[in-house]
Amino acid sequence: MTNERAGEGPGRVGQVKEITSLSNPIIKDIKALALKKTRDETGSFMAEGLKLVIDALALGWTIRTLVYSKEAKGKPQVEEVAVRTVAKGGLVLEVSAKVIGAITRRDNPQMVVGIFEQKLTKLDSLRPTLGETYVALDRVRDPGNLGTIIRTADAAGASGVILIGETTDPFSLETVRATMGSVFAVPVIRASQADFLAWRRKADVSIVATHLAGAVDYRTIDYKKKPVVLLMGNEQQGIPDELAKAADALARIPQAGRADSLNLAIATGVMLFEARRHLLSLEARG
Amino acid sequence: MTNERAGEGPGRVGQVKEITSLSNPIIKDIKALALKKTRDETGSFMAEGLKLVIDALALGWTIRTLVYSKEAKGKPQVEEVAVRTVAKGGLVLEVSAKVIGAITRRDNPQMVVGIFEQKLTKLDSLRPTLGETYVALDRVRDPGNLGTIIRTADAAGASGVILIGETTDPFSLETVRATMGSVFAVPVIRASQADFLAWRRKADVSIVATHLAGAVDYRTIDYKKKPVVLLMGNEQQGIPDELAKAADALARIPQAGRADSLNLAIATGVMLFEARRHLLSLEARG
Ligand SMILES: [Co+2]
Ligand SMILES: [Co+2]
Repeated sequence: MTNERAGEGPGRVGQVKEITSLSNPIIKDIKALALKKTRDETGSFMAEGLKLVIDALALGWTIRTLVYSKEAKGKPQVEEVAVRTVAKGGLVLEVSAKVIGAITRRDNPQMVVGIFEQKLTKLDSLRPTLGETYVALDRVRDPGNLGTIIRTADAAGASGVILIGETTDPFSLETVRATMGSVFAVPVIRASQADFLAWRRKADVSIVATHLAGAVDYRTIDYKKKPVVLLMGNEQQGIPDELAKAADALARIPQAGRADSLNLAIATGVMLFEARRHLLSLEARG
Repeated sequence: MTNERAGEGPGRVGQVKEITSLSNPIIKDIKALALKKTRDETGSFMAEGLKLVIDALALGWTIRTLVYSKEAKGKPQVEEVAVRTVAKGGLVLEVSAKVIGAITRRDNPQMVVGIFEQKLTKLDSLRPTLGETYVALDRVRDPGNLGTIIRTADAAGASGVILIGETTDPFSLETVRATMGSVFAVPVIRASQADFLAWRRKADVSIVATHLAGAVDYRTIDYKKKPVVLLMGNEQQGIPDELAKAADALARIPQAGRADSLNLAIATGVMLFEARRHLLSLEARG
């Protein structure tokens, strides 16, 4: 990953720059982050909201550019985040409401936006231990579903979300938005199917695949004996046979209505709260 | 509810009309269904997809207009639906791909679209019996959330979804889309908060409200003794005190991550599968 502001001279780093024009090249670069190509090339992505930016910094994410609207100027928390951004060599932009609306494509935009370095966790670095739960998603397509699943994994105390094969980009604006900040808290891993299967052979985990053809009620599975990987199929096709064969159990959620009417994010939520049933309690929260 | 085609003369009813122009007044009327005002005035709404239209007719919904693209012409199932539409006095339109794309605002539109009469269930007609579960949503705002909740209620075998107070329109295209057809299968009820509270005093139900301040673990509640109404707060504010006071239990879902990180639809799904845990089994499905 290269710093997207590299080569623009040291004079630009660490100073607040005021921008009101949509045609400013820096703003154009930021707007281009709506494209996956640009996100991939720059290794960066956008997150909206002061609280999210504060949380991301606290969790050790690297901010490249902080953008805030004139209305947010002088707010102590905004000033603090600006100082931290400058200290890390990042750029701080004070912009008009029009500009921040254009960047985030919103009518009522947040007043603060951060451009962060992307960060993925490597599959090989995962060493699941007892009490840990992972979600593995096969070729998930819908950005909103992926964001909601990352958010739900966070809520349920899962240790990471593994994206298998071709998936929607976890760093798209729509996905990041749907995570409500959990994209900064939950490790996200990308892996090919072959790599996932190779990892699965080494890792001492129990793979529980949710499959329409699954014969086992999801509530009868032993989620306590090993770390659990909940393997969820994609929105259209379910799980391919190569992955289903690698599973220790093929689980099914009983449904009363029309066939297969559960949305992927809901099914993942129901599975997560079942797999972690023995681990979650109101007391544990404090 | 008045028939939106009323007054246009009997010659138009029951015949297939070919339309290729976006400026055709009938197409303009259909496109106007994107507006809540038009949906309210005409008492109608749009649903996409041949399977959905077939299911809706089977469930007794009244179709006013069937629209299909030229590519779908001659398909036996499409012909059958067209015959049924004509038999009911509805209008059948054969249109270009461009027109159906404009109606549904999609790049890859479905080939069949149905315009149906809206149908809501009256709160006073609900007489919950043991084994039934209802979802009551206080001022739900997000169309996608509402659609997903209706879909999940269907999957879990719930008996209806009660919308309390100002809510997003259950008949918007985005909500109908997210229900994946369940809007035709699950009774939807609208009620003011006062009407809901009055109904609650007469109905012999157990109201379980999910509340951040709830002290009771959602898994310790008795969902078997009475019909259950799961009362869910809205995305921003949770449940107002008047509704919380009317609840028999204030439930909380233990969360491991950051505060209140569960999305409304996911929380509703987790609650539904818990409240109906004793009622759902793989065998029951057959
Ligand atoms: Co299969
Ligand atoms: Co309250």
